[in-house]
This record gives sequence, structure tokens and C-alpha cells, in this order.
Amino acid sequence: MNPSRPAGACRALVIFGATGDLARRMLWPSLYALHRDGLLPDPFQLVGAATRPVPDAAFVERVREAILASSNGDHFDQAAFESFAGRIRYVAVDTGSEGGLASLEAALAPGEGGVVYYLSTAPEHFGPICQQLGRSGLAGAGCRVVVEKPIGTSTETALAVNEAIGTVFAERQVFRIDHYLGKEAVQNLLALRFANAIFEPLWNSNAIEQVQITVAETVGIEGRWGYYDGAGALRDMVQSHLMQLLCLVAMEPPASFTPSAVRNEKVKVLWSLRPFTRESVATHTVRGQYAAGYVEGRPVPGYLEEEGARPASDTESFVALRAQVDNWRWAGVPFYLRTGKRMRQRSSEIVIQFKAAPFNIFAGIGQQLTANVLLIKLQPHETITLTLMHKKPGLNEVHLGEVPLNLSLADALGAGRRRIAYERMLLDVLRDNPALFVRRDEVEAAWRWIDGIVEGWQAAGQKVRPYDAGSWGPSAAIALTERNGHSWRE
Amino acid sequence: MNPSRPAGACRALVIFGATGDLARRMLWPSLYALHRDGLLPDPFQLVGAATRPVPDAAFVERVREAILASSNGDHFDQAAFESFAGRIRYVAVDTGSEGGLASLEAALAPGEGGVVYYLSTAPEHFGPICQQLGRSGLAGAGCRVVVEKPIGTSTETALAVNEAIGTVFAERQVFRIDHYLGKEAVQNLLALRFANAIFEPLWNSNAIEQVQITVAETVGIEGRWGYYDGAGALRDMVQSHLMQLLCLVAMEPPASFTPSAVRNEKVKVLWSLRPFTRESVATHTVRGQYAAGYVEGRPVPGYLEEEGARPASDTESFVALRAQVDNWRWAGVPFYLRTGKRMRQRSSEIVIQFKAAPFNIFAGIGQQLTANVLLIKLQPHETITLTLMHKKPGLNEVHLGEVPLNLSLADALGAGRRRIAYERMLLDVLRDNPALFVRRDEVEAAWRWIDGIVEGWQAAGQKVRPYDAGSWGPSAAIALTERNGHSWRE
Repeated sequence: MNPSRPAGACRALVIFGATGDLARRMLWPSLYALHRDGLLPDPFQLVGAATRPVPDAAFVERVREAILASSNGDHFDQAAFESFAGRIRYVAVDTGSEGGLASLEAALAPGEGGVVYYLSTAPEHFGPICQQLGRSGLAGAGCRVVVEKPIGTSTETALAVNEAIGTVFAERQVFRIDHYLGKEAVQNLLALRFANAIFEPLWNSNAIEQVQITVAETVGIEGRWGYYDGAGALRDMVQSHLMQLLCLVAMEPPASFTPSAVRNEKVKVLWSLRPFTRESVATHTVRGQYAAGYVEGRPVPGYLEEEGARPASDTESFVALRAQVDNWRWAGVPFYLRTGKRMRQRSSEIVIQFKAAPFNIFAGIGQQLTANVLLIKLQPHETITLTLMHKKPGLNEVHLGEVPLNLSLADALGAGRRRIAYERMLLDVLRDNPALFVRRDEVEAAWRWIDGIVEGWQAAGQKVRPYDAGSWGPSAAIALTERNGHSWRE
Repeated sequence: MNPSRPAGACRALVIFGATGDLARRMLWPSLYALHRDGLLPDPFQLVGAATRPVPDAAFVERVREAILASSNGDHFDQAAFESFAGRIRYVAVDTGSEGGLASLEAALAPGEGGVVYYLSTAPEHFGPICQQLGRSGLAGAGCRVVVEKPIGTSTETALAVNEAIGTVFAERQVFRIDHYLGKEAVQNLLALRFANAIFEPLWNSNAIEQVQITVAETVGIEGRWGYYDGAGALRDMVQSHLMQLLCLVAMEPPASFTPSAVRNEKVKVLWSLRPFTRESVATHTVRGQYAAGYVEGRPVPGYLEEEGARPASDTESFVALRAQVDNWRWAGVPFYLRTGKRMRQRSSEIVIQFKAAPFNIFAGIGQQLTANVLLIKLQPHETITLTLMHKKPGLNEVHLGEVPLNLSLADALGAGRRRIAYERMLLDVLRDNPALFVRRDEVEAAWRWIDGIVEGWQAAGQKVRPYDAGSWGPSAAIALTERNGHSWRE
């Protein structure tokens, strides 16, 4: 199961922030799964890097615990883990001082192929780490750097982060991860749209009434109040996941499935987003902040009562907005985005709501029609469902009903377990395939639109509205769609 | 379970030809099922009529045997059968002589509601029976008459049959059965087309490449050589089942789901069929006649070797043709029809073949695209399937595959057994709902088009081509579609 080693393959992956939350929950378990399935190159070194010194053996034990904790009851393959552990080294680094990467330099075995640096750290370290890598001669042409959101908190700061990375790494070496793009259902959305001729005639304002993109979490701030309060739902979630999903729904057919062609079309969508004004933020956006309430039957504190909270904070933990894509395809079709913490249920989904049939020929026999919906569900389970009206079987006179067609059939998924998005993203970095990663101009275009909203909020003095934890956000978010005769799917 | 008795309900059903093949295989078992499920009115008399005298008890025993033979292993409910048998009378009639229906007159209990006459006889008896019913005063305003194909063998003879029925019964009393229209999948085709806004933008020459309608039988002539040889596949099957299916695929959205509105749209399709000429029959139609061969591994004789065959017969047991619907919706879309006996497998289906994607953006990563297909299968099982391309799940780089979506989900069908088409049709006669029955102008418009083909064959001297029993017909039928770059679905 040892894959061939293509030109440009890597010899090592270094994780900065190797003991952090993301590394523990996602990166090490994903790497273990790739190793176990024979999908990592060989030889291929895995180096954990963080500030504090930890003996290799202790670090390997932490990795083992992380894998076990994330296994969801999967069989743990001890032999596979042992060979996996054989790839792992740990180094303590000091990214703030000259020579602080000497331990890393020493740990990296020489050989062919570049090194992938995964910056699983706070974003303020991105620039310094890259500069240190450059100065240490560790950032050669075959190397790649992977960074997580947030890339900045505004256009200005994003430009600075991208510039700091860009002075050391060329754009083609930079992989900005948005793991939502690695989800099977999101991948399949592109296949459905561009591998089937029947969707294109329907994929525009003639046939589509509205689009909804929801990323609802039931969790609260979970001990990260300080970080979160500096960002808020708009910057933390809308600028990244929601806008990326919007791009995939709204993009024009690319000329090819190459990373450049796909990302060119995505960035065109971002450029087509109608900028917000002081007036339109007031009518087209809603900011919310959760108050105490009940989530899944359990009492939870409000945002301002969380550990470490600053009482007067006006940071939003919920945002709903109506976006407009100003181009020929989408003129007049509202794209409703919403995301929040402490919502009624965990649910990430894209709802493509088709227009109602122009006339109901079955009204005379007492039959109502429900408009068709294409639902791309990302959480808690990944599915794609098309809802159709059909004739209910039987000898009765014609009775119509809705029938959901599940496009992610259990058969189609086969016997294999569902791959987690990070495995795909890591593998794509190793394959040097940047298609699912966010290009610099995308990040910056997204921030420009987000900046307009933040400026509008500030200019209009738009405050957060409280909502009960365990609800679907402030009632103003309901009004946002109902004013147009639309309803959030619940 | 006794349904309410609506105005205009019937008090009796009389089956002429009560001991014949159709009555035995379809009518009595369907009536029994309707009775058992409480769907017949009460009181409601069932009268079998045929030429030979049979005691009531012996006739009831024949009906019981017919029900058992068609039960497909269903539980036989003795108590239900006994109450069913209580409804049955048998009368010997002589439809050729004055007063030949006296026994029927005597057997029919008086009461409110009309009588339904089901003419399950050879078509030459339709006129005489109707006239006798009229003369005997048995054809009052509340009565209905049900007739089976064939209605004539040409426009001229169809006019005569319709006229003979029409002098006694008004058109709204005449129910011309085509049991294909009672099939669940055919019913659902109308629901899919007109209850879902997403199909209409696709249902035309912009999105559809070609349509295929196949009714393939494995059986041969089965002792009916004399009858069949006078008709042939074109008159026996194309004029009825295949043209009716074509109408449902091609019709415009009706203004309502009333029988008149639906049948107005169907007849418009028949009027839009491009007439054949002596030249176009040569290039656009294929006649075939089966030679000896193997069907399902069993040797079978050729058409000319069947029992009762006339050696020099030029009657076709197979026909394939390319029809063109000359209107805005369908200009340029070929409708390929084919039907035959002794084909490779029993299969009735409508294939809506969508156009290929205009461009394959996945070609660069080695992926082929297959054009979408909507398949409405009537035999051997009724299903509706939409075939889509999707991304095969897994960590591989994008691999596309076909995935069939079954619109007739097992869930949707519920626990009930599949109703046979005749039950629905009989119930619709009792409900006085003619929507699924063929109107006089439809029959005549269909014959006009068929006559053009027969005349073209005669003028061009187009002979039957032999094909091996157990094949898909003469190779010319393959060439018929391949010349346009199309292939029959197999």
C-alpha cells in the first residue's frame, strides 16, 4: 500500500502548535489514519513543534491519547500505531528569537523532497514563524506552509499576514485551509453542478428562489472568551466557512477543474457581492448575543456570564444577513447566511430553495404543491437530498406528497468509513493540490466585504440583540427572511 | 369500509366475454381485490355474460380458479370470496339476434344507478352489442361502456366502431381502456412533470437529446396467429400503448388536472406528429418478423412456423420507428419507438436521455461524463430512476461515477401490495373519472398517423426483415438510432 512517490513529494511534515487543540483533535488522528491506510509517503517524517520541551516518548503518548479520544469507537490498530510512532519526533522551538528553530533543523532528516509546515498556532505567529523558517534556510522551493483561519481580522491585517508569509513563501507554496471545503458533501456539490447537464438550466434566478447557508453550533465559548470576543461571529465564521460555501454555490462553471480555474471563479463571486452600506446593514444584517438559556435540556450561562467575560462586551455570537450576488446569474436571489453559538441544534447546511411551480394544476383536486429543495447537509451528517413531489402510490384519486431523494446513498458511500475533512486536506497538501485551499485574493476579497459590514455597524451604532441560548437567534433574524416571504429551514 | 355512494354511482357491472382470456387473467381478479378492500359500491352486482350457457355455480368456480391462478401467492381470503361470489350472476347472451339480451335484462336487479358494460370481446362485437343494449333499453344515461383496444384497424374502421358505439352511448359514457395508463409509474410521470418546478426547464429540446419508448415482449403469438397476423405490431402495440406513452411524455402542461384538459393536451401531441411519407418510412421505420431462435435459453419457432401460420405472411412482429413531434418544445428531438415479440427480454420503458454536459471540465483529470437519464420502467417492475454523476466518496482525487436515484422508493410505496393497473382503471370507471381513458379524437388522430405509415409501407413495398427470436430485432433497428449517434438502452 506504499503509494508511488511523485515528483515534488514531501519528506516531512512539521506541526507548529503540535500540542494545541486543533493538532490534538484533528491533525494527529488524521495523520494516523492516513498512515494506517498506507497513504503517507515513505520515508516521511512527522515533527511536532511547540514551545515547551517534552520528551519524544511523552509526546508520542499524547498523540496516542489524542487518537484514542477521537476514534469514535473505531478499532485502534496497535501495530499501525507503532510504525506511525516511528515517524514522530518532537522539538521545542522558540519562534520569537534568532536561532529558535535550531532544534527543528537538527531534527529534520536530510533527503529529497520538501517539508510541509503546518502552522497550527495563533495567527500572530504566522509571520514570525515564516520569517524564521526563511532565515534558517528551511523554506526552500519544495516546501509548503499550511495556515488556518483566521487570516487577520480585517483587510488591512489580512494583507499584513499574507505579506509576511509571502515574503518567504511563493503563493503556490501557501495552503490556507478551510476544512469545510474538504467535506464530502461540499466536494460532491461541485461534481453535481458540473458533471450533470440537468442542473445548469436550474442554477440561476429563473429557477432558484433563495439560498440559505446556516452554520449553527450548540457549543458556547468554551474557555476561549478572550480570543472570541476580539473576533465575533462575523469575522470568525462568516468571513471563512460561510463565504466559501457561498462561492461554491454561486460560482460560474470553471473552464477546467484545475485549482486556478476553480479559484478564479470563486473570487469572481466575492467580487460580485453587493457591498453593504450604513443603510443596508440596518435592514439586511442582524447581530445577536446569547443570553442564558437551555441547550439540549441543560441550563447554560449567557455570553456575558461565561468564564473570563468582560461585562459590557458588544461582540456578536450570532449573525444573520442577506447577501446579494450582483451578476446575471443571481440578480434578485437572496443568499441568507446565518451562524451562531448556543443555537437550538448543531446544523451546517446549504438550502437551495427552488421557485414554486408557476401554477398548480392539481389545486382543483385539492392537492398542494411544495417547492423543490436541494439540501446539502454538512453537520451533523453529510448528505445531499433533493425533495420532489410525487404521486403517493395507491388506488386513491391522485394524492401528492413530498419524497426526499438522498443523493449520498449509503450504497454509494461503500463500506469505508466516512473520511474526515482534515485527512483529505492533508493529503491534498502532500499531493501539492491547492484546489480546495483558499487563495490570497479570495481571503482579501472576503475581508473587503466583511469590512464593509463592520464599518456599517460602527457607523450605524448597530448593537447586538440578545437571544436565548437554545433558540434560533434573535427574532430579527426571522424577520430578515420573512419580510421577503421566505422562511429559514428548521 | 363501505365507501359513500356518490351521485352517479353504478349498481352493476356486466362483463361481455366473461369467460375469455382478459376477463380470467385481469378483470375477475381485479374485481375480487376491489371487493376484498371494500372499494366496490354496495349493493353492486357483477354479471358475467358470454355465449355458452354455464350454471352460476360453475361460473363462480371458474372465477375462483382465475383469482387463485393470478394471486402470485397472495393469501386467498375465503370469507371475502364468498361475499364476492354473492354478487355474481352468469347469463348466456346472443348478441347477434333480436332479444338476445333478454337473459341479461332479467338478471339485472332494478335499483338506482347505472350499469357498466365491459366489452371484453373481439372488436367486431362492439357495435352489435351496443346496438342491442340500446334496443333493449339497457343503455340509459347513467350507464357506461368500457372497450379494449383495438378500436378498429385503420382510421376508417375506427370511425365505424366509434360511430356504432356513439349512436347508443354519448362520448362521456365511453371508457376506452389502455391499461398502460393505469400503471403507477405512468401516473407518477405526470406528477413528476407537473408538480415539480424543476423539471419544466429541462423538458424540451434544449435539455433533452432523445426519447426512447420500448415495449419488448418475450412471448410469441401464443395461439392467436390468425388475429395477430391481421394486425401486426404497428397496429396492435404502437397505435395504442406506445403512442399513449409518447403523449404523456410530450404533452404541454394542461391548464388543470381535469380529464378534458389532460386529454386536450394529449391529442395536441398526436396532431403534432410529423406524418410519414413514402420516403420517410423507408429511412425512419423498420419492420421485423422473428425467425426461430432462443428465448431465455429455450428454442422457439419462428413467426412463420407458429401453429396456424400462413407461410407467406408479411406481417411485422416488430417495429421500430423514429417519430418527430413538430412543435416548439420538441423540434429536433427524435422519439424512437420500438416494440416486438420474442425479444431478448421483457421490458417496457421510457428513456428520457438528456443532452451531454456541453463541456467536460473534468477531462483534464481523466474523468468521463455520462449524460443524465430519466428512466421510467413499466415492466417487469415499475420504477422511475434518475441517473446522475457524482463524486465517488473517498480520499482519492476526484473520481466521478454514475449514481441511480430511484424515485419510486420502497419507503414511498408503503406496505401495501402494488395495485395492478386494471384495478385502478375499473375503479375510475365506477367513479366516472375518464382522465386515464382514451378519448375518441385521440384514437382517431393516432390512427391517422398510423395509416400514413401503413400506406408508406405499401407504396414503398417495404418488407419485413427477419430477426432471431431472443434478439433486439433486425440490425436495421440498431442502425435507425445509430445514424443519429444514439443507442438503444439495453
